[in-house]
Amino acid sequence: MPAGSNVRSASFGPEVGRSMRTVLVGGTTETARIDGISAAGANREAMVHTPSADVEIIEYGAPVLSPVVPVSPSGCPTPAVVTRAARELLGFDVLAVDAGLARPTGAPTVTVGEAVGEDVREACPMLDAEGVFENGRRLGRALPDEELVIGETIPGGTTTAMAVLAALGERVTVSSSLPENPLSLKRRVVREALAASDLQTGEAAGEPIEALRRVGDPVLAAAAGIVRGASEVGIEVVLAGGTQLATVGALARHGGVEASLTLATTTFVAEDRSAAIDDLAGDLELDLRITGPGFDELDHPATNAYVDGEAKEGVGMGGALALCERAGVPPVDLRERYLAVYERLVAGDERAVKA
Amino acid sequence: MPAGSNVRSASFGPEVGRSMRTVLVGGTTETARIDGISAAGANREAMVHTPSADVEIIEYGAPVLSPVVPVSPSGCPTPAVVTRAARELLGFDVLAVDAGLARPTGAPTVTVGEAVGEDVREACPMLDAEGVFENGRRLGRALPDEELVIGETIPGGTTTAMAVLAALGERVTVSSSLPENPLSLKRRVVREALAASDLQTGEAAGEPIEALRRVGDPVLAAAAGIVRGASEVGIEVVLAGGTQLATVGALARHGGVEASLTLATTTFVAEDRSAAIDDLAGDLELDLRITGPGFDELDHPATNAYVDGEAKEGVGMGGALALCERAGVPPVDLRERYLAVYERLVAGDERAVKA
Repeated sequence: MPAGSNVRSASFGPEVGRSMRTVLVGGTTETARIDGISAAGANREAMVHTPSADVEIIEYGAPVLSPVVPVSPSGCPTPAVVTRAARELLGFDVLAVDAGLARPTGAPTVTVGEAVGEDVREACPMLDAEGVFENGRRLGRALPDEELVIGETIPGGTTTAMAVLAALGERVTVSSSLPENPLSLKRRVVREALAASDLQTGEAAGEPIEALRRVGDPVLAAAAGIVRGASEVGIEVVLAGGTQLATVGALARHGGVEASLTLATTTFVAEDRSAAIDDLAGDLELDLRITGPGFDELDHPATNAYVDGEAKEGVGMGGALALCERAGVPPVDLRERYLAVYERLVAGDERAVKA
Repeated sequence: MPAGSNVRSASFGPEVGRSMRTVLVGGTTETARIDGISAAGANREAMVHTPSADVEIIEYGAPVLSPVVPVSPSGCPTPAVVTRAARELLGFDVLAVDAGLARPTGAPTVTVGEAVGEDVREACPMLDAEGVFENGRRLGRALPDEELVIGETIPGGTTTAMAVLAALGERVTVSSSLPENPLSLKRRVVREALAASDLQTGEAAGEPIEALRRVGDPVLAAAAGIVRGASEVGIEVVLAGGTQLATVGALARHGGVEASLTLATTTFVAEDRSAAIDDLAGDLELDLRITGPGFDELDHPATNAYVDGEAKEGVGMGGALALCERAGVPPVDLRERYLAVYERLVAGDERAVKA
């Protein structure tokens, strides 16, 4: 949709009528291959397609070239379905950013990184952190919008985010796409990650590129670059996500970004004590905005898993819900559209099986 | 813009309410480096940026990462300005396809080809014609739309199109972005091209991939693939352009596509006798649709060059004008928006110079 007809709705703050774009940064970290660390895919084989499929769902309403509809091992649909539903109601612009997708996508993307992130337990899993960050920064500076809402899709990303928070010396919180957060596993991985890159907790404070290079992932690098660039030219930034986007905020703060930043996340993250998202947002001076889809009003296979604590956030879900609220969309309309998008995906899936 | 709120307007035919997407295929042929063959850039240095800048203008309304605003040597603005103006009025979806851009673009793209096309006077300038065609075909098959409006941006493309028409044994017509079409130069280049690839006129009839491989360019290959794929799944196709898009139609026909195809071009091409677009469309059973922007109603540096025969077509201009007409947009509104987009570009250019 052209800038001339961008979504113009009441803003989070006092300003009104700003042009807005949702930026979805997709990429890969081999960290996701650690058994039991992520639910962003039906299985390890399928998970590698998740970011490519997520951006197709946001762009087209369904996967086009990707062979999978991303679901958790229990069948919980990707949060991309929520963001797509919001987009169908609000008509906002989307820019998908390829920070290192492992599989081709049929959605148009701007490429800021070519390589997938290595396993965070390797020494320096993001060798080109600076290049990806600078590409993101250049893009963020160049965009013509007044407001960017930035989300992510990268399986395993909560664990790399946890490692980056540790490297920066920030509160080490972590959310999970699993209902039972594998905390002890993640803590062990983070310890191993810091050790592999010869890094003490807090040693990369004030050095965001170093934190990214030693224990980060390409999505964190790209998103942090976009936030930096956008802030440099006065574009307002909404971080649409949970602990990963809070970590992007931490990287921005450690790089000297002083602009106000909003962290728009879901009630599911807010209710997750291990995420401690309000404390983290407070530490980093992020304006926290919490919005829920009211899925507890329904009893449906596509929503019950969320109510039970799966998925929680991702692919800009918290930001998309906040945009709906800002525009005055009744929650029941969002839920109806969510189910419609879900049914379309399921139908497409059946066609794919038959084909 | 989501499929759910796609442009839904009266169609060219009897159907109404179809979901539509404009596909812009960008790429490069070294043929453009031949002195005097193309006006798709202020000079040879600038011309290499034209396709990357064109897709940014369609996406954002102005170049973002590209260093140039594409103009002809005399200052005639790129037809992307017309297509962008139409998009701002109609809000249609755009998909930019990278078939081999020579320079990075800040617009999101789906990549179907990595290599630029060699000079058509080399033997087999499109070695991977089949790969690019098949990638395009896969994309065309996968898109969720009911109608695709397909345009191009590739300096030098009218000459490669002329060579492909010759290879297929079709009527060898040719338009030009220059007011005085350098016909004898183009004829010589086409003769040299056929000779270099050891091809007789008409020798590649019925073999579109072979014609592309020996005398084509990446945009023709990608667009022909998209048309083939879209036709295979019943998506209606509008070829938005002049002799290049007619050549895409020829490649489709020689590959066995029997579906109805519309060729939507401008009055400027229709009035160019060397293009003989009505004869070419007739030969290929393309439904010809001719629409003009009424630039002769104005007296402005941004429109006078068109009236004098420069540019004529490109970046989907003829299709964009047809979409405006179909939606009942008064031509005066289109012209006003065109000037507004142009003024924005000029202002941006001045900022770029100052920065």
